[in-house]
Amino acid sequence: MKKLILAYSGGLDTSYCVKYFTAEMGYEVHAVSVNTGGFTDQEIEKNKEKALALGATSYTNIDAIATFYDTVVKYLIFGNVLKNNSYPLSVSAERIVQAIEIAKFAKAQNADAIAHGSTGAGNDQVRFDMTFQTIVPELEIITPIRDQTLSRKQEIDYLQSHGISWSWEKAQYSINQGLWGTSVGGAQTLTSHQTLPEDAYPSQLVASDSHTLKIGFTNGEPTSLNGQKGSPVEIIEQLEDIASKYAIGRGMHVGDTIIGIKGRVGFEAAAPVIILEAHRTLEKHTLSKWQLQHKENIALWYGTHLHEGLYLEPVMRDFEAFLQSSQNTVTGEVEVVLHPYRFEVVGITSDYDLMQSKVASYGEENQGWTAAEAKGFIKILGNQSRIIANQDR
Amino acid sequence: MKKLILAYSGGLDTSYCVKYFTAEMGYEVHAVSVNTGGFTDQEIEKNKEKALALGATSYTNIDAIATFYDTVVKYLIFGNVLKNNSYPLSVSAERIVQAIEIAKFAKAQNADAIAHGSTGAGNDQVRFDMTFQTIVPELEIITPIRDQTLSRKQEIDYLQSHGISWSWEKAQYSINQGLWGTSVGGAQTLTSHQTLPEDAYPSQLVASDSHTLKIGFTNGEPTSLNGQKGSPVEIIEQLEDIASKYAIGRGMHVGDTIIGIKGRVGFEAAAPVIILEAHRTLEKHTLSKWQLQHKENIALWYGTHLHEGLYLEPVMRDFEAFLQSSQNTVTGEVEVVLHPYRFEVVGITSDYDLMQSKVASYGEENQGWTAAEAKGFIKILGNQSRIIANQDR
Amino acid sequence: MKKLILAYSGGLDTSYCVKYFTAEMGYEVHAVSVNTGGFTDQEIEKNKEKALALGATSYTNIDAIATFYDTVVKYLIFGNVLKNNSYPLSVSAERIVQAIEIAKFAKAQNADAIAHGSTGAGNDQVRFDMTFQTIVPELEIITPIRDQTLSRKQEIDYLQSHGISWSWEKAQYSINQGLWGTSVGGAQTLTSHQTLPEDAYPSQLVASDSHTLKIGFTNGEPTSLNGQKGSPVEIIEQLEDIASKYAIGRGMHVGDTIIGIKGRVGFEAAAPVIILEAHRTLEKHTLSKWQLQHKENIALWYGTHLHEGLYLEPVMRDFEAFLQSSQNTVTGEVEVVLHPYRFEVVGITSDYDLMQSKVASYGEENQGWTAAEAKGFIKILGNQSRIIANQDR
Amino acid sequence: MKKLILAYSGGLDTSYCVKYFTAEMGYEVHAVSVNTGGFTDQEIEKNKEKALALGATSYTNIDAIATFYDTVVKYLIFGNVLKNNSYPLSVSAERIVQAIEIAKFAKAQNADAIAHGSTGAGNDQVRFDMTFQTIVPELEIITPIRDQTLSRKQEIDYLQSHGISWSWEKAQYSINQGLWGTSVGGAQTLTSHQTLPEDAYPSQLVASDSHTLKIGFTNGEPTSLNGQKGSPVEIIEQLEDIASKYAIGRGMHVGDTIIGIKGRVGFEAAAPVIILEAHRTLEKHTLSKWQLQHKENIALWYGTHLHEGLYLEPVMRDFEAFLQSSQNTVTGEVEVVLHPYRFEVVGITSDYDLMQSKVASYGEENQGWTAAEAKGFIKILGNQSRIIANQDR
Repeated sequence: MKKLILAYSGGLDTSYCVKYFTAEMGYEVHAVSVNTGGFTDQEIEKNKEKALALGATSYTNIDAIATFYDTVVKYLIFGNVLKNNSYPLSVSAERIVQAIEIAKFAKAQNADAIAHGSTGAGNDQVRFDMTFQTIVPELEIITPIRDQTLSRKQEIDYLQSHGISWSWEKAQYSINQGLWGTSVGGAQTLTSHQTLPEDAYPSQLVASDSHTLKIGFTNGEPTSLNGQKGSPVEIIEQLEDIASKYAIGRGMHVGDTIIGIKGRVGFEAAAPVIILEAHRTLEKHTLSKWQLQHKENIALWYGTHLHEGLYLEPVMRDFEAFLQSSQNTVTGEVEVVLHPYRFEVVGITSDYDLMQSKVASYGEENQGWTAAEAKGFIKILGNQSRIIANQDR
Repeated sequence: MKKLILAYSGGLDTSYCVKYFTAEMGYEVHAVSVNTGGFTDQEIEKNKEKALALGATSYTNIDAIATFYDTVVKYLIFGNVLKNNSYPLSVSAERIVQAIEIAKFAKAQNADAIAHGSTGAGNDQVRFDMTFQTIVPELEIITPIRDQTLSRKQEIDYLQSHGISWSWEKAQYSINQGLWGTSVGGAQTLTSHQTLPEDAYPSQLVASDSHTLKIGFTNGEPTSLNGQKGSPVEIIEQLEDIASKYAIGRGMHVGDTIIGIKGRVGFEAAAPVIILEAHRTLEKHTLSKWQLQHKENIALWYGTHLHEGLYLEPVMRDFEAFLQSSQNTVTGEVEVVLHPYRFEVVGITSDYDLMQSKVASYGEENQGWTAAEAKGFIKILGNQSRIIANQDR
Repeated sequence: MKKLILAYSGGLDTSYCVKYFTAEMGYEVHAVSVNTGGFTDQEIEKNKEKALALGATSYTNIDAIATFYDTVVKYLIFGNVLKNNSYPLSVSAERIVQAIEIAKFAKAQNADAIAHGSTGAGNDQVRFDMTFQTIVPELEIITPIRDQTLSRKQEIDYLQSHGISWSWEKAQYSINQGLWGTSVGGAQTLTSHQTLPEDAYPSQLVASDSHTLKIGFTNGEPTSLNGQKGSPVEIIEQLEDIASKYAIGRGMHVGDTIIGIKGRVGFEAAAPVIILEAHRTLEKHTLSKWQLQHKENIALWYGTHLHEGLYLEPVMRDFEAFLQSSQNTVTGEVEVVLHPYRFEVVGITSDYDLMQSKVASYGEENQGWTAAEAKGFIKILGNQSRIIANQDR
Repeated sequence: MKKLILAYSGGLDTSYCVKYFTAEMGYEVHAVSVNTGGFTDQEIEKNKEKALALGATSYTNIDAIATFYDTVVKYLIFGNVLKNNSYPLSVSAERIVQAIEIAKFAKAQNADAIAHGSTGAGNDQVRFDMTFQTIVPELEIITPIRDQTLSRKQEIDYLQSHGISWSWEKAQYSINQGLWGTSVGGAQTLTSHQTLPEDAYPSQLVASDSHTLKIGFTNGEPTSLNGQKGSPVEIIEQLEDIASKYAIGRGMHVGDTIIGIKGRVGFEAAAPVIILEAHRTLEKHTLSKWQLQHKENIALWYGTHLHEGLYLEPVMRDFEAFLQSSQNTVTGEVEVVLHPYRFEVVGITSDYDLMQSKVASYGEENQGWTAAEAKGFIKILGNQSRIIANQDR
């Protein structure tokens, strides 16, 4: 029997796929989920039960949280990446890592085919297909949901006809949760003029006070919270626990899908949004003017290519080399105050803080140079503009 | 007697200059202030009295609010410019326009010299000197504050010795107010780790409700508020009136001065920050993917050059041509909700909204293309990555 | 009968299409060629005879040389665009204009379908399809050569079976000629290690002397040759006549096709290559440092997007606005010497030459500033590097 | 006695400095030259004699050719850097390395002062001062030539008055030679419209044939010539020996000096120009589309910052990390043919050649995808342009 690896989420679409592949196409189906921060152990256990009940030969969950951080999230922090200045690329980033892990699994398993449950209307199909094509080009990619364009009802009916009569109530809001944020889709995100209601967000406001935190960074990576050291993944998770109670990091993003149309999505991403702002502030104190200037454009591109499924493009490794190099001095602590729905960065301390230099510092008295030197500086700095403006034109 | 044009603000430094120029250097001093949104009529009147009392031959206030908007603020909106992602360049922008207006005034008055009261430690001297050198290269630039490095006490003593014994109490916080925001300096902004206290900000929180607004844009410029049309300057001022009661748009900025050191400043800029976010959201719906991508880098440079006093560099006109061209479709209305200390963009309506296209729209059902077409798209889009990954390397 | 507009070149592929559309598909075929500089009157006359003999209802040649210059070539000059630093984008540029003209023709004619003869392996299909989809989305695009993947022999046999027994000897080298250069494909261009032989190039070396020329530019456009004024198209054509005798502007280009694979092509483009280098030299004298710096990246993108068929993307209009604005001072004359296979730019004269300024000029004696001013300039310019290097790290 | 380290070239200016520092200022002068490829052993020996005769306590030549290559030239190759598309930055690059070596020497020697002989009119003063300030901020920088603005005659007279009556005939052309090219200044380079005569160039045309060469690259570095392995410095020197006989790589460059005025210079740089073009061609075959695109802008900035003396800015290390990462596959051999005054790249062979992939290759028959897939690709690629063009606007 031919061996097929299916990216399995436990939802209706991929459940349909398990049954369809076994019952109609005669595949030996191996269901695989990749946890990039969105699944609890309980959910994984339940996924397993479901997959096997549907006829899968095996179910495997790959724990890829650390991999996700090391290969993608880290660079998003280094680059302060917010797509179109708002969205931390939560889903874009984790889908790539999921696709890579599944493709590698398929390769290791010597599979004959590989499958995902994405439709033909969105970004995920691109991320899955492109990654599969690149890593396991020899495998056929099978996508019944995209090919058959079935309604939910048709899928449910089909499963029922095979004795699976679980309840598949459609959630009012489709949620995608992961280490680097949660996306939320709903009726409002299909419009341009409405925003999601409070209760659409998985995390609800439960705090009403103000809360002060210190996030420590080492070479650009979050490595402590209030002085307690931890792995970056731990710091992100701990911060998320605290900050999500303040309903921080919510937003609506409208952006360009890879297929050329605009798409809109809500998101909540307390830890990512706080870490990015804290990190950016630390960089403003510890990087040179030119590092800050050039990083901006490079990070813009890193985010765009990642969003568009080009994570495996070699230029991404080159960008990562730049970003890693830029973090040599991004070490220090950032104080942040959380309030309901918002937060402030109070300030930073760092051995590399260029503002607290002994050579010269900003203010009314300057000991670094004389008035005459300042005048010479400006005179020559303005040479070209003066020449241009005063030509006989 | 030689005619000197002095950039006069009414503060201690430039008051010292008036007296010094007349009493010590024998100049006929013409004091000029340029209002870019920071002066009330009363303050202008008071400036006049002071200047004349100090010995100035004349005092002129140039109303440059509309000029400021037309020549700079407009493009900052088009470019969604926030320096280092936070500061709307409030002071940087208006100082340039002030310098230009004063230089033009000096030229029209056939002056012999031109003067400003900036110290040798900051950005403003660069903006003044560079602009003066470019527009009136034939005039000597005189800067006693920079040259003499006097203390406040020395200046006050000098004035008193000439019979001027006004009170010059040093404000705890130095404030620079204008159409495009207010900057606030104080003891905290000289540190890296402290933030300004609530009462350092000129606008205080007085509202406690939520307030919904609609800002209308025409080709990228704010042209209506809640359906009421107005000039962009009027819209900005009206919005500022409303939103400043919510203490919105506060922040701390640390950035690179033109002279190579880091400087930190607090700011409040309710209207600018809201307009920029509303404008950006409208652009995300109405501009193409490539416009959004390339605008980002161009606006980054526009802001940097402006900050560094290069407004008169010819490339700025080229950037402005790009930015103006990009706004053809940025017309529509943006709904915003104000809350204490924060605001949300609810959504937009626009005839140019690419998300509400009839050709294709995002979601589960797509009528614009088939699954086969999507597969062909992705296959070929991934050609190069596949080729690269599968070379015999 | 349904009306079909066919992009007709007179070659075997599009001749097959005429017959196929009339004989097999029952279309009323209107053959259209667009002259962007590659066709002589004689060739156009011959194309007409052929199209009608094959069964076309009409044949139209659209003279688009001036349009080609005004809408594309002009900006390639402004941007000094050479793809990957070598290829003047000859074919990429004209194919777009041809596609636009044919689509507009189809719209004006109220056609039912539109067709081209490109294969599925190259760039031209993308340029044609994308342009047609954008301008006449309501029309079906029919592409028999791509769909049927016939061999030349099959096409010839088919035509013969319909009584067309013209000679279709395959040229050893496939040539695409136009106002902005000629591309040459052959056995060697399919390899990575061979270059085209001398006789593959349409223009042969017939001159052996040196020849001095003066090219005049007005706002960046070529407007005179040796003092004789002419339209830019005339200047390009006159220069090509002279310079092609020197076998100048030949090269091999390998680049990325839109479909992700690498492609290689030979080209000769005497006038384009000389004009670009002359224009660039004039810009180096007349533009500011920052214009030169930023133009480079913008032109890089303009060329890439054009190459990839994105001419109709709105961002291209924004880039054009930037480029047009940047040419305000690019007026003057450039002296060039032609030699067999190469040329040199001797120098320029321009009223806007920033090198011949009276304010300051390069050399041993400088009257624009003092040694002290230069030292002050450098001291402060180096502030940040000094601060960074001398931190207690 | 106070210890002064002088950047000594053996020319009139720095010879004057030696005498002036010892006779007038009472310094113990240590003359140092840094060989970045421009000095022969004989010249170094002669420099030594001169320095000691002038009163220097010691003379040291630092051999920095390999350092020059490793720290700068390598990255100029990786980036294909030609300033304003023509000049290989010969002098800009080596001056920095010379300044660094001298500063390090001064530090190691515990010197009290450091000196150079640059005037106040050019770029070199900036490169020297900025580097000295950064590496040895504690040392006074002394620059008599800049400060005293003496004529050649005054310097000669002064030396004669101290018994030094060597002949200091001013060469008609000032030459600066190094590993990465030679710059030539003369009467013509002060104009905008004249070019240097043949005999101004140090290397003269002595070859009349054509000569075929193979340059091998390993990870972007030149490592073999005609199959003979060598260090990159050896390859550059061997190639220069051969190619300079063909008078290849000459040109005139006009560019922006750091002090805001335009400067013009002639150069000859046979090996650099050939290596850059060969390297670029190899990259076009072995790098991805996105690597080629993004490298271009990064290399543009690397060259600009280097030219402007910002080699020690931290962002340069970040750019170098990017550039190094991008060279992973730039390994192979490039065939080049030299002719008098010009050369051609014939082609390349490389295990990483993306053009010779088995997955898909350019041409009439494509096995990688079907016509339907190509159509799907283009349809979706054109989605946004189609949506934009067909809005009800």
